[in-house]
Amino acid sequence: MEKTDVLIIGGSAAGPVAGVTARKHYKDSRVTVIRKEKEGQVLVPCGIPYIFGTVGAPEKNIIPDALLSGNNIDLIVDEATSIDREAKTVTTAKGNSAGYEKLVLATGAAPIKIPIPGRDLENVFFAIKDVDYLNGLLKALDGVKDVVIIGGGFIGLEFGDELRKRGLNITIVEMLPHCLQLVFDENFCASAEDKLKERGINIRTNARVEAILGQKKVTGVKLADGEQLKADLVFMCIGVRPSTELAQKAGLQIGETKAIWVDEYGRTSDKDIFAAGDCAEKRSFFTAKASALKLASIATTEGRIVGANLFELRRRNEGIIGGFATVIGDSGLGLAGLTETQAKAAGFEIATSEAKTPDKHPGSMPGAKQFAVKLVFERASQQILGGQVSGGSTVGEVVNVLAALIQNRTRANEIATFQYGTHPFFTPSPIVYPIANAAEAALLMM
Amino acid sequence: MEKTDVLIIGGSAAGPVAGVTARKHYKDSRVTVIRKEKEGQVLVPCGIPYIFGTVGAPEKNIIPDALLSGNNIDLIVDEATSIDREAKTVTTAKGNSAGYEKLVLATGAAPIKIPIPGRDLENVFFAIKDVDYLNGLLKALDGVKDVVIIGGGFIGLEFGDELRKRGLNITIVEMLPHCLQLVFDENFCASAEDKLKERGINIRTNARVEAILGQKKVTGVKLADGEQLKADLVFMCIGVRPSTELAQKAGLQIGETKAIWVDEYGRTSDKDIFAAGDCAEKRSFFTAKASALKLASIATTEGRIVGANLFELRRRNEGIIGGFATVIGDSGLGLAGLTETQAKAAGFEIATSEAKTPDKHPGSMPGAKQFAVKLVFERASQQILGGQVSGGSTVGEVVNVLAALIQNRTRANEIATFQYGTHPFFTPSPIVYPIANAAEAALLMM
Repeated sequence: MEKTDVLIIGGSAAGPVAGVTARKHYKDSRVTVIRKEKEGQVLVPCGIPYIFGTVGAPEKNIIPDALLSGNNIDLIVDEATSIDREAKTVTTAKGNSAGYEKLVLATGAAPIKIPIPGRDLENVFFAIKDVDYLNGLLKALDGVKDVVIIGGGFIGLEFGDELRKRGLNITIVEMLPHCLQLVFDENFCASAEDKLKERGINIRTNARVEAILGQKKVTGVKLADGEQLKADLVFMCIGVRPSTELAQKAGLQIGETKAIWVDEYGRTSDKDIFAAGDCAEKRSFFTAKASALKLASIATTEGRIVGANLFELRRRNEGIIGGFATVIGDSGLGLAGLTETQAKAAGFEIATSEAKTPDKHPGSMPGAKQFAVKLVFERASQQILGGQVSGGSTVGEVVNVLAALIQNRTRANEIATFQYGTHPFFTPSPIVYPIANAAEAALLMM
Repeated sequence: MEKTDVLIIGGSAAGPVAGVTARKHYKDSRVTVIRKEKEGQVLVPCGIPYIFGTVGAPEKNIIPDALLSGNNIDLIVDEATSIDREAKTVTTAKGNSAGYEKLVLATGAAPIKIPIPGRDLENVFFAIKDVDYLNGLLKALDGVKDVVIIGGGFIGLEFGDELRKRGLNITIVEMLPHCLQLVFDENFCASAEDKLKERGINIRTNARVEAILGQKKVTGVKLADGEQLKADLVFMCIGVRPSTELAQKAGLQIGETKAIWVDEYGRTSDKDIFAAGDCAEKRSFFTAKASALKLASIATTEGRIVGANLFELRRRNEGIIGGFATVIGDSGLGLAGLTETQAKAAGFEIATSEAKTPDKHPGSMPGAKQFAVKLVFERASQQILGGQVSGGSTVGEVVNVLAALIQNRTRANEIATFQYGTHPFFTPSPIVYPIANAAEAALLMM
């Protein structure tokens, strides 16, 4: 039996980052990752939609194993099947076992497959993080003309946008009144839908899928209102469910969101076992309540927290803010923190404001796109709770500007005098820098 | 005589922003801007280099006067020639006078013209913010082949890069060992120089200009080491000097950097007269010492402070951080706060660290560029003092991520667990997000 100081189960985002962080904080520890994926086969999770249009192949969307070897982290390619918490060992599908001082569960999450008729037909696919599976999907796309995507969240929209680049006929079916409704306020959702339509993508909102049609292979999708959509291929992406089988079998506590319960240091109910990433329960930065939000970026931040805490508690998880961006055509959309809807639902008394201007200056700069930001503030403290942004290629880092302001609980007055830098090619004009302008407008309402 | 509540002298960055802010904070006040530039002739200051390649004409690089009219701000096109502080009036070149309750000086700065022979020859130009003057420069460029730029700061490099797009033969002459040496650490300067050379731009560093040659029109430039550079046109941009004539004539106190002295609320030595922008003295956020740094973005932040403070002190200026970016070809470079050199010179005990990764993920995404960041921390407090970044089009907003962290005096441990958001098209991978990675590396050194 191998014995290691730090054993990490899972090779995607949280696991390797926990390993790299452990290597830095506990230099002499032996750190081992055990994962199912073969050498060179761990997919960049957020890159999966881009395999099908922009990048071209799963093999071009890989997290290099040099991340492990370069940090002196051992790799075992195998599947962990059970944990013996008393003996502090993990056994594997190949019949091996490995001992640990500290164990990190980074087992991730798996796509939810809604139990509707036709779900198992040929050419029905899910966002499964597996190179062979996605190569199967890539191959299946040859000869396909009509695609129905079930689920109008980020992955559905990104997948649809990429397949549209192949000239396919795409319909996105969303149960709620708007695509992206769980992550944006209505006007941002509407702007995303406009952009999808401009790209020639069909949208059915307020629409529930009753059945996937076909004999052996999918031929269509039937909606609850009776409409039938033609489909040679269906992609279902309505969310993920934390992978907690291993933790449950080991008797670890499960949280409200059905993820593995962890304390603010990332420890499970067993103090020698940590959990991070999609499998671990999260709490909101704003309310401290359990949150089901799952993002690769959150997983890596949790990896950075857990990796530092293994042998000594060095970092508290202050709760998740949630920052992310997406792209439709060449337009970007992003959010950090709470939307107006979410803030109200959480019970905050808020003030909101919006500002708009080109994302380059002067507006006559070639390639300038409209940049719009909406900020949400808590009235009593005047602290920023969230920001939504639409624009071009800078939207991802604007989300991070907002995230930095939120993480520091920055007040409206401080944001109104935020010391931004600007450049004609890269940012809006300093005279109307929209984050400062929106903060000023909100301040005067509070 | 006209009487106004708020009279603002200057129509570029700080002045209009002070006016807009005053309008918001003091709704019923009459606000008036007096400026030299005619209707529709105020140039976007940072956009000036881009007139000559990307944008094409001064008229396409204008701050719309709607900024004033839309905020119910009166405009007087005239030149203020003197201030009577006792009577609280300003007289103008056209022989008018205007009374004020509160006066804002936003008179800006003017290019330094080094007193060398040939300075007044035809085809020697400066970065003068005047539409007619710049149209003269634009016209003079017709038929020009060889251009010498004196001064290897931002404006010189940007101007050179733009003229290179016209196919001209460009040489930049810089007195210091590196271009951009006052604003970046050496490896960032070197990378900027490499990019200039790749673009076919010639650089002479450690080189002093002794004379501009020619009879009526410029024909060349003579360096102190005897080298003669052929030149049909010379552009001199070695810095600016605050325009303080009006303030000095009125007996207002002048500060260490030869700018108008102001307190932390933006008040001059006369409490009814404020100053903001390039004409106003600045203090460093880090040391509270006087700083000669001048940027349009700083000017607008000062406008936002001064405009709110006119009738009641509402905002303190915490000192300037300094955030800016520049572009060479399609590469971006940026800084927020202090460089290593500046931090050491200011007496800080520091730790620095660097991190590098593609600015999209996976690295196989089309258009991905190398993204490098260098962070500077104060050892004792572990607070971030500065960050330098090179990359692509997102560099400008990355500067603002750094600025938000600096303004909040964020510590290395908080940045190592910074809750960034990521997206394949827009940001580096969350697994190696370089700002967090660099903070982690610095933390372990402190």
